[in-house]
Amino acid sequence: MSHSTSSHAPGSHGLSAAPKAKARTLTRLRRIEGQVRGLQRMVDEERYCADILVQLSSVQEALRAVGRELMRNHLKHCASTAVRAGDAPAEAMYDELVDLMYKHIR
Amino acid sequence: MSHSTSSHAPGSHGLSAAPKAKARTLTRLRRIEGQVRGLQRMVDEERYCADILVQLSSVQEALRAVGRELMRNHLKHCASTAVRAGDAPAEAMYDELVDLMYKHIR
Amino acid sequence: MSHSTSSHAPGSHGLSAAPKAKARTLTRLRRIEGQVRGLQRMVDEERYCADILVQLSSVQEALRAVGRELMRNHLKHCASTAVRAGDAPAEAMYDELVDLMYKHIR
Amino acid sequence: MSHSTSSHAPGSHGLSAAPKAKARTLTRLRRIEGQVRGLQRMVDEERYCADILVQLSSVQEALRAVGRELMRNHLKHCASTAVRAGDAPAEAMYDELVDLMYKHIR
Repeated sequence: MSHSTSSHAPGSHGLSAAPKAKARTLTRLRRIEGQVRGLQRMVDEERYCADILVQLSSVQEALRAVGRELMRNHLKHCASTAVRAGDAPAEAMYDELVDLMYKHIR
Repeated sequence: MSHSTSSHAPGSHGLSAAPKAKARTLTRLRRIEGQVRGLQRMVDEERYCADILVQLSSVQEALRAVGRELMRNHLKHCASTAVRAGDAPAEAMYDELVDLMYKHIR
Repeated sequence: MSHSTSSHAPGSHGLSAAPKAKARTLTRLRRIEGQVRGLQRMVDEERYCADILVQLSSVQEALRAVGRELMRNHLKHCASTAVRAGDAPAEAMYDELVDLMYKHIR
Repeated sequence: MSHSTSSHAPGSHGLSAAPKAKARTLTRLRRIEGQVRGLQRMVDEERYCADILVQLSSVQEALRAVGRELMRNHLKHCASTAVRAGDAPAEAMYDELVDLMYKHIR
């Protein structure tokens, strides 16, 4: 992982400030875990590949929805950090954000 | 699911003809299941959103690799069906294939 | 370009066999050229970035539609080649096709 | 266009504040216009579909790079607006941003 964004204490940001968003994201991820097990079953039962591919794309869509929610929290966190910090570190923040979007949004 | 391609008996195609591909796909999907649980942990521990997003994109990448393998099996199956069937049903098959690619490859 | 698929004589495939598809594709590409000039105008007039981004994504959608049509022609051509050639070269063809899809479909 | 973001006076934002970015974006878009004409030539000469698809994907990549630059300007503009405006309108801004990313980044 080329992204060194990990020196962040838990509790200082995003999800911790939004307990409802956190619960919702966890529910979604548990459902996605179930969908991945469903895919295993389909492969095990040798279902038609096109049907498995359609199902797989709906798991990807569900992950994308989780990503969308996390990104929203992230922007919120970044913006409030930027407000507190003034203009100076903003340039680096834009670069990191745009990088995150264009490398990691699928 | 708008795609009604499911009237295919198990054993008539793709994965059944390739036991190694099947085992490999199942292994990948089990690893992906583990990665999804890892995401749940990260959310639960309120890790930095950007880090979760990077991790999420690597799960998506892993799903994409599974899709790629399934698509390979699917093409193989479609092509051999087309060879047996002659030209007539081919037009519909191309449409279904292109649809599958452009709607469902992420 | 890592893809060495270029030793193909014009006229031996896809588009040449489908003059209507060719004309339609050219019409689409000319419209896309116009849309790209429209983007230049928007940038030149310093329009709101979000609006330019929305416009840019519609150009990308239009290019995707062209790709879809080309892919359809390509599959048709590949499949008929496979029928003529028998099973032997098919494996390489599947690999090339899947590669094309997963590297180049956006 | 479902996105009504157009009531922005030219000169109030992003590109106007960054003449170098503007010139660079225009240069890129002119090059893309040339690439689209190149695609027309390939189609007209009935080149191999796979080769045209590879070329088409490199035009899409180039448009994506333009989008990336515009998004960077946009974030910069949004963030500075948010700083000036205080917290109130921020929620709507996050929604618009995330929408822009997930609907329009390809």
